[in-house]
Amino acid sequence: MLPPARTPEQRKHDVLDRLGRDVDAWVATADPRTGAPYMVPLSFLWDGSSLLVATPSQSATGRNLRLSGTARVGVGGTRDVVMIDGAVEALEAAELQAGTADAFAAKTDFEPRSESQHYLYFRVRPSRIQAWREVNELPGRDVMRDGRWLVAE
Amino acid sequence: MLPPARTPEQRKHDVLDRLGRDVDAWVATADPRTGAPYMVPLSFLWDGSSLLVATPSQSATGRNLRLSGTARVGVGGTRDVVMIDGAVEALEAAELQAGTADAFAAKTDFEPRSESQHYLYFRVRPSRIQAWREVNELPGRDVMRDGRWLVAE
Repeated sequence: MLPPARTPEQRKHDVLDRLGRDVDAWVATADPRTGAPYMVPLSFLWDGSSLLVATPSQSATGRNLRLSGTARVGVGGTRDVVMIDGAVEALEAAELQAGTADAFAAKTDFEPRSESQHYLYFRVRPSRIQAWREVNELPGRDVMRDGRWLVAE
Repeated sequence: MLPPARTPEQRKHDVLDRLGRDVDAWVATADPRTGAPYMVPLSFLWDGSSLLVATPSQSATGRNLRLSGTARVGVGGTRDVVMIDGAVEALEAAELQAGTADAFAAKTDFEPRSESQHYLYFRVRPSRIQAWREVNELPGRDVMRDGRWLVAE
């Protein structure tokens, strides 16, 4: 027996809790020139409204994010999914707000500014967020649509 | 301190062990017409040389797999990754070898043939497999290239 489906309020709560605590995400991108799918795990920082990741500008993910400006990001496990679709903005370290790069390094234990390769930061602004555990939670899995939470503050 | 990087032999062993035991994978695809990335967790069956997944033919993943014939599949956790790139073949249940659909249902506890929607099976034949845990395992992460294991039987 599956546990009962969570309420929309509980799902939003669990999403925000996970985005605040989890370190890694599966970041799916595609090459807009060839349509080739790509995916890698990357560490992220959640600032309350967007995810920040960092990857070499010349990596497959970096190139796909720069060229396409879009990503689909999975956080959590395959039976406790937070799935995010969002628009992506590329940022140099110097373009981040004061403290953001430090907060990223502290959360992820990874300092892109110390790498010999050129890294870019990428801000993923969610347009849709879905949350589900098992099949009985597929109905009602949208917790954000068009950038708006379906449950108010 | 990270544990030492695994040998190629150990990585291949761990990959085969995980493919045999794990139930779920993150399946990344893209729409070849728009380049939009997509990803969902799906249960899989490994038969020793290919992965079998099932999804509605009209779902985003089903459509992307039919149109593009390619996928990138992540198995394991973000700190114990098995990453597979492969060519994809769509199959009706009736086209599977005898016993395969039963083995899929037994492994995944999911029976696509009983669903009211039309499901397709998709066989992912790996061309490249990579295995890494932490950053010290990024060198040497290829365990298969061009469909061939780098460590012989």
